[in-house]
Amino acid sequence: MVGSDALQSIVYNRGSLRLLDQRKLPLEMDYIDVKSSADGWNAIRDMFVRGAPAIAIAAALALAVEVSDLDFIGTPGEAASFVSKKLEYLVSSRPTAVSLSDAATKLQTLVSKAAETAKDSKAIFQVYIEAAETMLVDDVADNKAIGSHGAVFLQRQLANSKKISVLTHCNTGSLATAGYGTALGVIRALHSGGVLEKAFCTKTRPFNQGSRLTAFELVHEKIPATLIADSAAAALMIQGHVQAVIVGADRIAANGDTANKIGTYNLAISAKHHSVQFYVAALVTSIDLSLPSGDEIVREERSPKELLNSEGGLGKQVAASGISVWNPAFDVTPANLITAIITEKGVITKTDADGSFDIKGFLQPAK
Amino acid sequence: MVGSDALQSIVYNRGSLRLLDQRKLPLEMDYIDVKSSADGWNAIRDMFVRGAPAIAIAAALALAVEVSDLDFIGTPGEAASFVSKKLEYLVSSRPTAVSLSDAATKLQTLVSKAAETAKDSKAIFQVYIEAAETMLVDDVADNKAIGSHGAVFLQRQLANSKKISVLTHCNTGSLATAGYGTALGVIRALHSGGVLEKAFCTKTRPFNQGSRLTAFELVHEKIPATLIADSAAAALMIQGHVQAVIVGADRIAANGDTANKIGTYNLAISAKHHSVQFYVAALVTSIDLSLPSGDEIVREERSPKELLNSEGGLGKQVAASGISVWNPAFDVTPANLITAIITEKGVITKTDADGSFDIKGFLQPAK
Repeated sequence: MVGSDALQSIVYNRGSLRLLDQRKLPLEMDYIDVKSSADGWNAIRDMFVRGAPAIAIAAALALAVEVSDLDFIGTPGEAASFVSKKLEYLVSSRPTAVSLSDAATKLQTLVSKAAETAKDSKAIFQVYIEAAETMLVDDVADNKAIGSHGAVFLQRQLANSKKISVLTHCNTGSLATAGYGTALGVIRALHSGGVLEKAFCTKTRPFNQGSRLTAFELVHEKIPATLIADSAAAALMIQGHVQAVIVGADRIAANGDTANKIGTYNLAISAKHHSVQFYVAALVTSIDLSLPSGDEIVREERSPKELLNSEGGLGKQVAASGISVWNPAFDVTPANLITAIITEKGVITKTDADGSFDIKGFLQPAK
Repeated sequence: MVGSDALQSIVYNRGSLRLLDQRKLPLEMDYIDVKSSADGWNAIRDMFVRGAPAIAIAAALALAVEVSDLDFIGTPGEAASFVSKKLEYLVSSRPTAVSLSDAATKLQTLVSKAAETAKDSKAIFQVYIEAAETMLVDDVADNKAIGSHGAVFLQRQLANSKKISVLTHCNTGSLATAGYGTALGVIRALHSGGVLEKAFCTKTRPFNQGSRLTAFELVHEKIPATLIADSAAAALMIQGHVQAVIVGADRIAANGDTANKIGTYNLAISAKHHSVQFYVAALVTSIDLSLPSGDEIVREERSPKELLNSEGGLGKQVAASGISVWNPAFDVTPANLITAIITEKGVITKTDADGSFDIKGFLQPAK
């Protein structure tokens, strides 16, 4: 259904859902069957699936499979209430995942509205299934739009480079989204357009999402790629081997300050030092206009174990006992280090007037 | 004999040598007895001991123990030849370690000269033992001089900070030298002077010398310390928690360009961006006046396995199969990013005239 050659973490056809077990990557590529909201709940809680959009869509589709051939006896109102309760249950698998609870709320509103006019419970389930499927289709389409806008923009910006090499950080690909990816989507689009020389990916310490997931996607799709230690990024840039850095975003403030995986800010400083362009690629839903700047973005700290033990905390102890640890999950890259922000609606560039981003103007253009 | 509270990797008294098994750090602290050049050869080959000065001194002392109560029958010339052959054998344990072969050559010259006038073989061995012991004493004294020069200089530079927090990279402490350390020696001196707020150390990817060794030394000596991921350095600096970065050096060119563990250049760029001072601490033997600049320093690449597997290559596979790897062991930090170079002979600062280092003038002052 996704209609892409990209690695798929969510494989869906009406009545059937399979999820890639990301915990086993990169060593094994196993899919599990999800036949009900209970299966979906377990898969999300146990981290078979990760990444904000992927979690929300997997949850919605798990319930879609469950109701697709359910023998339900009851009124349309009772069917809507059934769906609503199942969604509440699914949200409880990852209670802090905002995109999951946002998606559940939207779907709940939709079915309770449909219940006002629906002739039977089957019609309610039909409305629900179509809405969940639309989420999947839309997410992939949005990711592809990011890739296409980004590839066109980069080629124009870097017109004097025949082929472009790009460095990326963390995982922003098919494994973090419903398909295709954001920053990795731009790399995919450059590759399929024949203008990608090579992708470089960082290991992305401490949890290795770069070496485990991004490297896996790049190898899987035969995109020329090289893995580096996070600490080798500046040494790579000074050699002139990289024309652009492209990263994803966890959250973008109204002024363009961008929170993303720890190490992004390091890369942005190094890119500026070497006059390498630095792009953020993200869905517009990552933009939070209620935050004036990055100062208002809350910084999550993660378990010291990720640094103290091997395999991002899952393996044996490698650090000295008794050492204190500071393990921030994210850092904030100020807008002044960002060349442009690539979204599914187009590329946000800086205004000529004062070199800042007018994100509000981009999202809500004057009529 | 070392006369320091610092963690000792080399514990020597005449006739007795014990080496800390660094392979077992940080989980176990085991010393092995070294009674002969054969024991020393094995300990060096099997990496019980690492770090250029430490290797050379351990080799010299292993032979000193062997000859300290040797029943040798022969002329002074034969004794000198015996020492010379044993040194050649020791060099073969790590044939590419320049400091080891340099030390062997010096000691060989010394004993063959002594053979011209010595009255018996015992006198030759006595000359050798004293020379080997002097290497140990001198190395520790030189390291302490670096610490003391560095601490005084930093306090003067950062006079407006009551206490100083410092970030370091890789391991440059007692475990890499005969004792005390270079960059870590400066941190020790700041701490014993009561002006160190906190030391931050990076994990130092890919081989984790920071989390395994530096963190171990800092905890061992109760120096307030926090471990961070290499990729968190910029996020730390922007918070204003660090007043200086101090790193060691593998090689310093005549203009001050400094080759050091991969990631050093990243830190230097980030330090400059945040107006944090950036110091190199090293013995003057690390300076190679025959290299006009860092461009002439050969960059060693290490095994891809260090990035592909956990525990710096010793553990299980964590990266995707089939991904290419670029794993440079060192990078070169240009002199323009370095505030000053701290040596045992004093601190090399930039000339007012053009802001460059006059290292040659510092080492060979006009009479």
